Amino acid sequence: MDLLAETAPDKTTQKLQSRPVPRIDARHVLHPWADLSSLGTQDALVIHSAKGVRVRDSAGKSYLDAIGGMWCMTLGYGREELAEAMADQARQMAYYTPFGDVSSEPAARLAEKLAKLSPGDLNRVHFTTCGSTAVESAIRIAQYHFAAQGQPQRRHVLSRINAYHGGTYLTQSLSGKSADRTLFHYEAEFVHHLSSPGYDPDRSNISAEAKLQELLSEMEAEIARIGPENIACFIAEPIMASGGVLTPPEGYQKATCDLCHKYGILYISDEVVTGFGRLGYFFASDVRFGLAPDMIITAKGLSSGYQPLGAVLISDRIATALARNAPADKPVFSNGFTYSGHPVACAVALANIEIMERENICGHVRDVGPYFIDKLRALRGKDIVYTVRGDHLMACVECWTGEEVGPTAANMALAQRVDSYCQEAGLLVRPYENLCILSPPLIITRSDIDRIVAILSEALDRAEADQKAGKI
Amino acid sequence: MDLLAETAPDKTTQKLQSRPVPRIDARHVLHPWADLSSLGTQDALVIHSAKGVRVRDSAGKSYLDAIGGMWCMTLGYGREELAEAMADQARQMAYYTPFGDVSSEPAARLAEKLAKLSPGDLNRVHFTTCGSTAVESAIRIAQYHFAAQGQPQRRHVLSRINAYHGGTYLTQSLSGKSADRTLFHYEAEFVHHLSSPGYDPDRSNISAEAKLQELLSEMEAEIARIGPENIACFIAEPIMASGGVLTPPEGYQKATCDLCHKYGILYISDEVVTGFGRLGYFFASDVRFGLAPDMIITAKGLSSGYQPLGAVLISDRIATALARNAPADKPVFSNGFTYSGHPVACAVALANIEIMERENICGHVRDVGPYFIDKLRALRGKDIVYTVRGDHLMACVECWTGEEVGPTAANMALAQRVDSYCQEAGLLVRPYENLCILSPPLIITRSDIDRIVAILSEALDRAEADQKAGKI
Ligand SMILES: Cc1ncc(COP(=O)(O)O)c(C=O)c1O
Ligand SMILES: Cc1ncc(COP(=O)(O)O)c(C=O)c1O
Repeated sequence: MDLLAETAPDKTTQKLQSRPVPRIDARHVLHPWADLSSLGTQDALVIHSAKGVRVRDSAGKSYLDAIGGMWCMTLGYGREELAEAMADQARQMAYYTPFGDVSSEPAARLAEKLAKLSPGDLNRVHFTTCGSTAVESAIRIAQYHFAAQGQPQRRHVLSRINAYHGGTYLTQSLSGKSADRTLFHYEAEFVHHLSSPGYDPDRSNISAEAKLQELLSEMEAEIARIGPENIACFIAEPIMASGGVLTPPEGYQKATCDLCHKYGILYISDEVVTGFGRLGYFFASDVRFGLAPDMIITAKGLSSGYQPLGAVLISDRIATALARNAPADKPVFSNGFTYSGHPVACAVALANIEIMERENICGHVRDVGPYFIDKLRALRGKDIVYTVRGDHLMACVECWTGEEVGPTAANMALAQRVDSYCQEAGLLVRPYENLCILSPPLIITRSDIDRIVAILSEALDRAEADQKAGKI
Repeated sequence: MDLLAETAPDKTTQKLQSRPVPRIDARHVLHPWADLSSLGTQDALVIHSAKGVRVRDSAGKSYLDAIGGMWCMTLGYGREELAEAMADQARQMAYYTPFGDVSSEPAARLAEKLAKLSPGDLNRVHFTTCGSTAVESAIRIAQYHFAAQGQPQRRHVLSRINAYHGGTYLTQSLSGKSADRTLFHYEAEFVHHLSSPGYDPDRSNISAEAKLQELLSEMEAEIARIGPENIACFIAEPIMASGGVLTPPEGYQKATCDLCHKYGILYISDEVVTGFGRLGYFFASDVRFGLAPDMIITAKGLSSGYQPLGAVLISDRIATALARNAPADKPVFSNGFTYSGHPVACAVALANIEIMERENICGHVRDVGPYFIDKLRALRGKDIVYTVRGDHLMACVECWTGEEVGPTAANMALAQRVDSYCQEAGLLVRPYENLCILSPPLIITRSDIDRIVAILSEALDRAEADQKAGKI
């Protein structure tokens, strides 16, 4: 494998080298999850062009993108059809207000399509601009739902440690990643966190069944403590993504949903990552986990990352209750955004779904997904690999020095080194703590999977050698 | 003026009439600010195509768009250059993660450009997906700023009655429009509302100076009550937009900013509506109101509505303090969104700014703005017009039956009737309570202004006649 051939600068990007975009960026941008200690001093890695599953930086170096933009670049880069869908819609009607009783054709048609693709009676769609605003809206809808039935105290929300639900005040408060808890302010009056449900059969000393019972007992105890009559909803990713690709023990998703429904608590399934093909289906809740959620959150893959877009899919039962119970003297649903259902974003999402269906992207993921996981799991033999876990095209390699497990400084330095070697060899697997998280574009082929795993394997070997030589 | 000529169906939209998009919409979409009492039963007005300052619905009827999409469609519909900017960027590199130290050329260049256009030392940009997420981020940054200086209790936020800052949990809580306060849950522990600063010299029985003193005394008293050592920031629109185009008494903006700075409170200027030309400048804070804000929020006109995009502009002083005071063991800035600085949205914003500069859009607004306001103010003679207020291309006609002032049922019905007659005659001025709010595209010409005012004038006359005939 000639890893260098593709990483040499090409002509089109060479002229960029005279314009110091990474410097401009360092001077003027405050990035999400920036390292504040190097603000203004660290030059950015500027991604300049991209095609298929490969991206090229402003210095002309090419990389295989093993993180899919950020869980979202599903159809791959440079899709002409998506570029044309946006330009066509922008020419015809770029925007009009979605407030009240005004709509656009792309928004209406996308809502209809989402209703068809989603499970059960989730037939009503509230569009937003991203995943965070969709989660915000879902929580607010759940609270409204009960307030309109005369239960305003029923506003508490159950979430979980290691969850990730977004970057706003409320959604960051719902999130439960300790790495993200910083000096920002967090809501703690009505938000409650259950334990992380992650279960790794390779590395656990209790059975899946025992773990499941433990999680369910804790949940039922917490419901009793808060009082079911005070709890509006439970929000959960079917498999935790940013928290570190944490899969719950078999049966957990359905059992927690049943527990919610036993107590009249709404179940919100956050499929921002797991939806739109990453686990082999448009939505994983139903077909993969037997869930009957009251609402589903979608974003990311919904537009294949080409446009900012999010949505809450709402069950007819809830929508009907909202309509029936809204106060007659003030029936306004005061939630939403200027760019809810943006026509250009919705046109792209429609084209995205059309391509996904035409190219049978979900079928392809069901085909290559197990291959991807198997190949990665073969890396478990290495000393610095604590475990490898995942499901179809979401996976994670957890590093350790062989001593303490988890995000210790030493383990994080190790993962950082693996990441550097990957990047040097033309593979992007940005590390999170001591994990290398992988979520390639859904169009990934077996040969590109082989390439990802080969580079990663070599990077792990080099990092292991460094560690053994005391060089980390 | 032949009002009908332009409202007849044309060929391209006729085929749509067989596809019931308004029905699809009614069945599947839950709109922002929907009327829940008619959910599923009221067909939407579907805007299907648009060009310049005119939009056409799915039945083929054409309208002059006097609300500019929703304060945001600044350059007018169907701009080929903006359509091409998005398609070109989507072809080259539609998306890559903006997290940590990764960036894209459009985001870096847009940040640089915004730093140039904005006042003072607002040189650092945190991108988001809309106005709400930008306001969320600004508030969180203010809270972090003080927490990092060992003052976590300094998290309280001052806002105002009639403010509008967005649709999320926190931003709806900051908003102070009573029409929007419904059965949703609102944050009330650290959010505080001062009085609405709106001052209408035509309809007030105290002087502007007296009103100003009243507002400032109240503000200083509220600061004393909460304790300045507990207050992170004050957020304010220079002129309140959605609250009803409410202009404070002369000098208020600067005086409140000075008051904040006297107590070390950060001043956040929400220019989502007032920025990007609507008041004749890219940013109105400084040049129009003598403000030196610590942060400015922008969205809407930033992309001329063609793309979902928002941003917080942060002063170097604050950014430097964040960098200096972030804890060494956890310096991560855990705020942001998958689609922060989306390359396609940023490319469109860059093209938008280029066009605005090339066509001197701000100069045009400074030229036609006073004409627009003067023409509208001539409507004050009518019995059902309580007042007309505004500044350049944001304006509002307030209706009343001549009895009680404000959003009474009778006054609202009157405004609704005005709106219906306008719509019938091919003019969109969607009513808010008893107000007709106008915010046309910035490219509006004197002759289109004449047309807007002529239709509105006739609609007011017809509604007045109805009212006098007891038909409302
Ligand atoms: C499961 C989940 N929910 C919500 C979000 C928030 O989405 P966004 O970043 O588009 O606001 C994310 C983002 O990573 C996510 O992974
Ligand atoms: C002054 C102001 N701030 C913030 C917002 C929220 O922006 P968005 O709807 O894009 O979230 C708005 C929207 O109308 C606004 O008018």
